[in-house]
Amino acid sequence: MAGNTFGQLFTVTTFGESHGPALGCIIDGCPPGLALDEADIQTDLDRRRPGTSRHVTQRREADEVEILSGVFEGKTTGTPIALLIRNTDQRSKDYGNIARQFRPGHADYTYWHKYGTRDYRGGGRSSARETAARVAAGAIAKKWLQQTFGTEIVAYVTQVGEQEIAFESYEHIGRNPFFAANESQIAELENYMDSIRKSLDSVGAKLRVEARNVPVGLGEPVFDRLDADIAYALMSINAVKGVEIGAGFNSVTQRGSEHGDELTPTGFAGNHAGGILGGISTGQTITANFAIKPTSSIATPRRSIDIDGKPVEIATHGRHDPCVGLRAAPIAEAMLALVLIDHALRQRAQNADVAVNTPDIARR
Amino acid sequence: MAGNTFGQLFTVTTFGESHGPALGCIIDGCPPGLALDEADIQTDLDRRRPGTSRHVTQRREADEVEILSGVFEGKTTGTPIALLIRNTDQRSKDYGNIARQFRPGHADYTYWHKYGTRDYRGGGRSSARETAARVAAGAIAKKWLQQTFGTEIVAYVTQVGEQEIAFESYEHIGRNPFFAANESQIAELENYMDSIRKSLDSVGAKLRVEARNVPVGLGEPVFDRLDADIAYALMSINAVKGVEIGAGFNSVTQRGSEHGDELTPTGFAGNHAGGILGGISTGQTITANFAIKPTSSIATPRRSIDIDGKPVEIATHGRHDPCVGLRAAPIAEAMLALVLIDHALRQRAQNADVAVNTPDIARR
Amino acid sequence: MAGNTFGQLFTVTTFGESHGPALGCIIDGCPPGLALDEADIQTDLDRRRPGTSRHVTQRREADEVEILSGVFEGKTTGTPIALLIRNTDQRSKDYGNIARQFRPGHADYTYWHKYGTRDYRGGGRSSARETAARVAAGAIAKKWLQQTFGTEIVAYVTQVGEQEIAFESYEHIGRNPFFAANESQIAELENYMDSIRKSLDSVGAKLRVEARNVPVGLGEPVFDRLDADIAYALMSINAVKGVEIGAGFNSVTQRGSEHGDELTPTGFAGNHAGGILGGISTGQTITANFAIKPTSSIATPRRSIDIDGKPVEIATHGRHDPCVGLRAAPIAEAMLALVLIDHALRQRAQNADVAVNTPDIARR
Amino acid sequence: MAGNTFGQLFTVTTFGESHGPALGCIIDGCPPGLALDEADIQTDLDRRRPGTSRHVTQRREADEVEILSGVFEGKTTGTPIALLIRNTDQRSKDYGNIARQFRPGHADYTYWHKYGTRDYRGGGRSSARETAARVAAGAIAKKWLQQTFGTEIVAYVTQVGEQEIAFESYEHIGRNPFFAANESQIAELENYMDSIRKSLDSVGAKLRVEARNVPVGLGEPVFDRLDADIAYALMSINAVKGVEIGAGFNSVTQRGSEHGDELTPTGFAGNHAGGILGGISTGQTITANFAIKPTSSIATPRRSIDIDGKPVEIATHGRHDPCVGLRAAPIAEAMLALVLIDHALRQRAQNADVAVNTPDIARR
Repeated sequence: MAGNTFGQLFTVTTFGESHGPALGCIIDGCPPGLALDEADIQTDLDRRRPGTSRHVTQRREADEVEILSGVFEGKTTGTPIALLIRNTDQRSKDYGNIARQFRPGHADYTYWHKYGTRDYRGGGRSSARETAARVAAGAIAKKWLQQTFGTEIVAYVTQVGEQEIAFESYEHIGRNPFFAANESQIAELENYMDSIRKSLDSVGAKLRVEARNVPVGLGEPVFDRLDADIAYALMSINAVKGVEIGAGFNSVTQRGSEHGDELTPTGFAGNHAGGILGGISTGQTITANFAIKPTSSIATPRRSIDIDGKPVEIATHGRHDPCVGLRAAPIAEAMLALVLIDHALRQRAQNADVAVNTPDIARR
Repeated sequence: MAGNTFGQLFTVTTFGESHGPALGCIIDGCPPGLALDEADIQTDLDRRRPGTSRHVTQRREADEVEILSGVFEGKTTGTPIALLIRNTDQRSKDYGNIARQFRPGHADYTYWHKYGTRDYRGGGRSSARETAARVAAGAIAKKWLQQTFGTEIVAYVTQVGEQEIAFESYEHIGRNPFFAANESQIAELENYMDSIRKSLDSVGAKLRVEARNVPVGLGEPVFDRLDADIAYALMSINAVKGVEIGAGFNSVTQRGSEHGDELTPTGFAGNHAGGILGGISTGQTITANFAIKPTSSIATPRRSIDIDGKPVEIATHGRHDPCVGLRAAPIAEAMLALVLIDHALRQRAQNADVAVNTPDIARR
Repeated sequence: MAGNTFGQLFTVTTFGESHGPALGCIIDGCPPGLALDEADIQTDLDRRRPGTSRHVTQRREADEVEILSGVFEGKTTGTPIALLIRNTDQRSKDYGNIARQFRPGHADYTYWHKYGTRDYRGGGRSSARETAARVAAGAIAKKWLQQTFGTEIVAYVTQVGEQEIAFESYEHIGRNPFFAANESQIAELENYMDSIRKSLDSVGAKLRVEARNVPVGLGEPVFDRLDADIAYALMSINAVKGVEIGAGFNSVTQRGSEHGDELTPTGFAGNHAGGILGGISTGQTITANFAIKPTSSIATPRRSIDIDGKPVEIATHGRHDPCVGLRAAPIAEAMLALVLIDHALRQRAQNADVAVNTPDIARR
Repeated sequence: MAGNTFGQLFTVTTFGESHGPALGCIIDGCPPGLALDEADIQTDLDRRRPGTSRHVTQRREADEVEILSGVFEGKTTGTPIALLIRNTDQRSKDYGNIARQFRPGHADYTYWHKYGTRDYRGGGRSSARETAARVAAGAIAKKWLQQTFGTEIVAYVTQVGEQEIAFESYEHIGRNPFFAANESQIAELENYMDSIRKSLDSVGAKLRVEARNVPVGLGEPVFDRLDADIAYALMSINAVKGVEIGAGFNSVTQRGSEHGDELTPTGFAGNHAGGILGGISTGQTITANFAIKPTSSIATPRRSIDIDGKPVEIATHGRHDPCVGLRAAPIAEAMLALVLIDHALRQRAQNADVAVNTPDIARR
């Protein structure tokens, strides 16, 4: 496969460039009978949409989704679901220099050398705009997981630059422009982000994504472990540079007597494992952290070269996120959902008979 | 796929349990014409082998590999290469309790619930012994990469528990039992590991894996990015809990002006990217760090339950690594090699014509 | 995969129902740099289009294709190419009975039992209308093969019902409504088809598809042989019931001394093999025949049951092809092109170095 | 994938050359809990084994299978099952000329050009000996299908050269060296085969393979239709040149009113469909015919060329089947079983909930 398909049984194949006519995806393998309409998908798309606060890009996109197939009389039919999102705010402008220069920290250089050509308008395929299709597909996965297992997936920002964000409550997440599970630090974060923007620079972020009510038994060792596929899924998001499962890098200094979660008749006594042992879900909450690098498009002038290898100076002006991590929460939720539904179907394929005899799974 | 195949064009399908008759793999897609014999593979197997110092498990396995197919007159033929490693030191013993109990931090619980059964002898399929097959396959990938691009892959331990290991020189790595790029701290590390072992406990580790002389252009966005596949590959190794590419979690506090590597006519001015931009290799050294949790099998008694849900106390005696991370370096090298060869073949498939026109790749 | 993706390196994922808003596909893995616009695709779509003669369905569809991504400044970029074809002639009508009844010879019964639901409008996903997406994707594959190897692919009808059609010349194929390589029998065929239509019945057909100028070396034994993949590709077309490669079923009565094509310094002395030996292309013309069953939708009343298992009588009136085989030629060409491009990329991946040293391939 | 893996959820990856040390396979995705030992596999291997009558090759191979993994305490564990069959009768002999010459009708020419090298000993990977691994894997699939659905798979020879073999009874199949469902023509067939062998020539064959008690709903349109995958599976067997499903090429002259099987409250009134409609199983018996070309290795001298393009004369002496089709029945059964188990698991993955509500499937 050429790399634009995610999953093995619930597959999502995406397409679309930042400034092309449209982007979207085909979902193949969605079980039939799931109630679905555009509104189910639009909700998550609206959470990811640009232009919703002054701290993110001011590009204006309605991101309106159209279901082209696979749904009949309000329910999925088991055939491919095609989703279409038209681009509407591709500003016509002079791309002159961008077409011939490689922006530092960007995919310009590598796309050019890989393909021998590139769509330079707005980053083309390498634009974070591509994640709209992921979020749309993920919304379907989330709905199926919720209805089948009661699975709840949530992501939130735990750090922006030097600012660590204390966890206060899940219910705050949707009420601030930072996807922060926090209420008391919001003003402080607003000021921090304003200062970053004014400095013509950008900053990184750290997020956490969790899934509750995941059945035990998901994951296919030895390679397609659940944690391996989560790492793959999160690292495939633009700008992600690190992924941790459970205790993550803190495991390095832990002792075995501390890290290994004891079991009791009422359940596990801890969750350093992040809900995964031996690459298979334990039934506990799945937890992962990931790091997002600072946006590469900044107004501060930087050294680079053009396609002839000549030195140039580049400063990117325009509608860019000073912290791209602030819009990553819905994308991470979508990716985790895509991993989980795929493994749920895989588990069902191989172990259908086991499942019905297993109390943990039967509890669904 | 049921999860035991790695790669898409250079595929490795592994089999084998810790205490079964044998383990091994089939490699499909190895280009023809590569000079290959058992010795090429044995070298890396010997580096991974147990029982080589007092700091690792004392199980004695020759780990002797037999090539069953795919090689004729000393060269690969393009047909599947099957590798066989017989197990020789499966001690006969009474497994009584282990068969019915779930060891904390182990895959016992999840295998039991996933499959409704498990081979409890030495951890069965979930044993780190499984990685011998990976190392064997990786040796072939390393040889092809070396001969085709001059690619050099090396992994080393950068931290054991609280002990950070300073980088001194690559040449030290093979000369101490810790895969440390260090000479001056070895005595200290010996003492540290002795103390861990005597405390009947275990400890985590952090490693770094690097690949030099990687051609530009490897990686298939948007999902099968090179970094995403490296994260998947490293996280699929037993006990790995975190993966970083380049600056990793340090990116969170970096500014865009710091993180984004500038380009100059003579090359990149830095490598925070870890050799990957937009999911595609830049031609720079690829760098990744990963965290390994402390061994779960420890002699300290711990609480758990049996398959009936009754509480039990478990202490694991026997031949276990006090720091499983100390044997992970050859495995990480193998996994990185498997990612790189697979993407090299994928790049060749899609962009054969581009490649010959691209100076960076042509330089191979 | 859930079954709607064709190929491994040049993948085509299709979507769309007969009476839904649109159908189309995503092509992933098309090499960059191929000149491409809508007109390249429209030509083949027009050849497949319904309503072009009185011998095929009178449904009127413009089948106008829109390229949504993957093409920039008139050339492919190496990123996914999405193609969209809006449905325009979905007549609103009362589907009442069709929704609850299973038409003999149709997929109604099996879709209902497989998915527990079905889009009954015009056959939904099981409609031959789905093949428009294949033809669109195939047009791109054909263009690349033509430009890369000079490959020419052509399909034609060799029999309709009892009427065997003598081969006269390739140039006749595009000049009659039967895709017949024949000029002298056309009037006879017109009369035959008129009589079939008037009898309220339908009839089967036999076609032949050929590819000239195929490089030697395509095909991946032991399973993904070129002939096996051609059989899969042709049998995946609606209504196909049989596939032959080369001598096909005539091989049964042949002697080895007759069937095995001798080699001479100037080439093969025959082509009973159909251009494939050991599952790998020989460089000769690839030849395959296939059988298409008579259209199941006929106006003659037939016995069936409804979804409650009650007996019903069904006669299908409306816009149906009396011989669905008459429109199959462009579809077969597309499928053969998709097989060949996929195997060309696979060959390039694994044997790039061999290829340049091989006279037969180098002759491209 | 490089072509040596069959299936998507129940995958079989095979390896091995005719005169290498061994052949075998890894099965990944076998559901856990299936009772399995070597004897289950050996039975089918013995049916395929060479040297069992004077009408087949006189090579003597025990074809003894060893299970290396994936089975514990007599049951499958859900982890990969590796099967090993050592070659024992690779006669040492002078291969001199064969190494440099291309036998007509053989894969010598194509392997040489594809890979730039080939293992010429006994045909290497292209030898029909490779099918032993398929038969071994198929035996496991057959057992699971039999226990899960009561599925019975049987193949038999319906024609040898000009000799059509009348169907008399299934029970005769195992009682003659021709896998003929016939008792009265056996003496005639013996004489016929003797005459072929004495003429230093070979002859083709036609076989039929059937599966009874297949659940409704197997098959994944639009590409991975059950019939398309059966065509792929059968055409992937050495020497197969044609495949028919149900009425096959007879469909060409049929009318729609004849071909389309009517439905009644007690079931289908016919089976021209061969148990498959719209690419999905109907629950009826699946029927397929296939053609096998005459053996290419014959003692009659034939024209060919060597690797330098020089003309040579080749006559193959030694231990060859005068009609390779006579040993194909167990192989076809294995391939059909591998298709069915894979699609059964795929159906279970996507439609687990549908299945339990579907009378036809519930009847299993």
